[in-house]
Amino acid sequence: MDFIKHHIALIEKEIVSIPFPQQPSNLYDPCRYIFKLGGKRIRPVLTLLAHELYNSNFQKAVPAALTVETFHNFSLIHDDIMDNAPLRRGMPTVHTKWNTTIGILSGDVMLVHCYKLLADHYSGDELSRLLKVFNRTAAQVCDGQQMDMDFETRKDVSIDEYIEMISLKTSVLLGCALEMGAITAAAPIEDAAHLYEFGKNVGIAFQLQDDYLDTFGDSSKTGKQPGGDILAGKKTALVIECIEAASESDKVLLDEILHGQSSDKIEHVMTLFNKYTIAEKTRKLVEEYSHEAIQHLDKIKVDQQRKQSLISLTDFLLNRQH
Amino acid sequence: MDFIKHHIALIEKEIVSIPFPQQPSNLYDPCRYIFKLGGKRIRPVLTLLAHELYNSNFQKAVPAALTVETFHNFSLIHDDIMDNAPLRRGMPTVHTKWNTTIGILSGDVMLVHCYKLLADHYSGDELSRLLKVFNRTAAQVCDGQQMDMDFETRKDVSIDEYIEMISLKTSVLLGCALEMGAITAAAPIEDAAHLYEFGKNVGIAFQLQDDYLDTFGDSSKTGKQPGGDILAGKKTALVIECIEAASESDKVLLDEILHGQSSDKIEHVMTLFNKYTIAEKTRKLVEEYSHEAIQHLDKIKVDQQRKQSLISLTDFLLNRQH
Repeated sequence: MDFIKHHIALIEKEIVSIPFPQQPSNLYDPCRYIFKLGGKRIRPVLTLLAHELYNSNFQKAVPAALTVETFHNFSLIHDDIMDNAPLRRGMPTVHTKWNTTIGILSGDVMLVHCYKLLADHYSGDELSRLLKVFNRTAAQVCDGQQMDMDFETRKDVSIDEYIEMISLKTSVLLGCALEMGAITAAAPIEDAAHLYEFGKNVGIAFQLQDDYLDTFGDSSKTGKQPGGDILAGKKTALVIECIEAASESDKVLLDEILHGQSSDKIEHVMTLFNKYTIAEKTRKLVEEYSHEAIQHLDKIKVDQQRKQSLISLTDFLLNRQH
Repeated sequence: MDFIKHHIALIEKEIVSIPFPQQPSNLYDPCRYIFKLGGKRIRPVLTLLAHELYNSNFQKAVPAALTVETFHNFSLIHDDIMDNAPLRRGMPTVHTKWNTTIGILSGDVMLVHCYKLLADHYSGDELSRLLKVFNRTAAQVCDGQQMDMDFETRKDVSIDEYIEMISLKTSVLLGCALEMGAITAAAPIEDAAHLYEFGKNVGIAFQLQDDYLDTFGDSSKTGKQPGGDILAGKKTALVIECIEAASESDKVLLDEILHGQSSDKIEHVMTLFNKYTIAEKTRKLVEEYSHEAIQHLDKIKVDQQRKQSLISLTDFLLNRQH
């Protein structure tokens, strides 16, 4: 990602400058810690890139970019508690390194700091516009997380519901990151809306592809042994599509295999996936959402040349492992 | 509290109108549930009363009042998880009725809804001013909760530190409620600041008195058997004052009694409290903070008559059980 290395470097520099107080250290050390665990910083970079469509000096977009990254890290802390996850990026999660109570509270204060970043750096109509998209998105991310948890105990989740869930849980934040960048550049309202839809659809395509690659990916490119999701019995897009397409007896069979401990688990599930052309169906969905994303990007009224970074980033996200 | 019964009735009516979505029900039912458990609604009433100092039509203050009450209820949901509390107002806490995961997430979405209430109803400078006091207060409440947890494992907490903790954990939200009401009435900045200090100091006095009454209160007035805090071994203002004043051997003795299970526990602690005039010391502190509060109220540049409701509410909070 050479073309955005300066953006990433700036975000890394700014993240450590977020003025979290020193005390109480049990509250603010976890906030600094989760940021130090790293990450691709895709979301804040999207904010800067959206701003750059209209204004080459993206300094004004930085607090909005940090807001999005702070929100993302808040959600990681709380999600890790909810998912009982011991590790995050190979390091102990906050609630493991400290405790659950500290995890809850430091997440809370990070969410408050998102709003501090906005209110301390923006005002007037700009602040109102930023808050509206950010508030809506933040609530949607909670909705998506709850839907994800509700789906764990449901057997009748449709692929449309699944896409709605991943859209809320992860994709709207990409849209929000871009729209906030546009707002800080005083972009036209329609452009900001198209950027939001572009980001949301890229996010959905990315998530679906993530499910696809875990099972059908080339391990020499993904660096992972295929079938991890199948071994874990995860209810991925592939599983949900298979349930939608399968005969009653194959549905029962898929459920049995996924929840069983057979040594041929991956092979058996793959047989069913192949019978119902799940790889093709999923690739088609990824293409549809990618196409939808690019259509929104096309409608934005700035020179095509200026869109190159966003196009390259989309290519990177959606094609790197094909 | 006849003089504010109309204010309370309005808040109760408005609370059920907060537009929480219906779905996902596991996320938003807990938000509606915690509000239904009731409460004195002191905080939102303070917002309305502060507004009324300047403008008899307090309609414009209602969303700010609801913001403060929503924040208070968010903090109850998360605090109950942290405190492992099974009951709240005699009913199951959210994480008991649902589960911890739902408690964390519904608290999160309530915090987001605080900001929705602000951003959807205010704009321009007014929104910026509201956000600044609300953001600062929300972070301080987290700081106070963390300090409270940190104090559990410390033996050297001073009374000044304890007062700082209760101030952050509970009192600043009273100040914030008042200041936000003043802001929605376009009150002068100095008045808003005095109202904040008035509320904060009333809050501190109230909390200290709460500790006092639990041990020295008249049970025919408090309706509670005195000594509950002592039986629970709680580190109240009284205990901390006693540790500060006591000889080394009495410190050790107090610690032993508080953490022991003697049937004379209350009597033994009371003997030490009497030896070091803890009742008098605490009453003096309550009076100091009450006096400080009233001094700030006096400095507000509106007719004394208009302040009557706030004075009556302060009397109600600070004198009802003397």
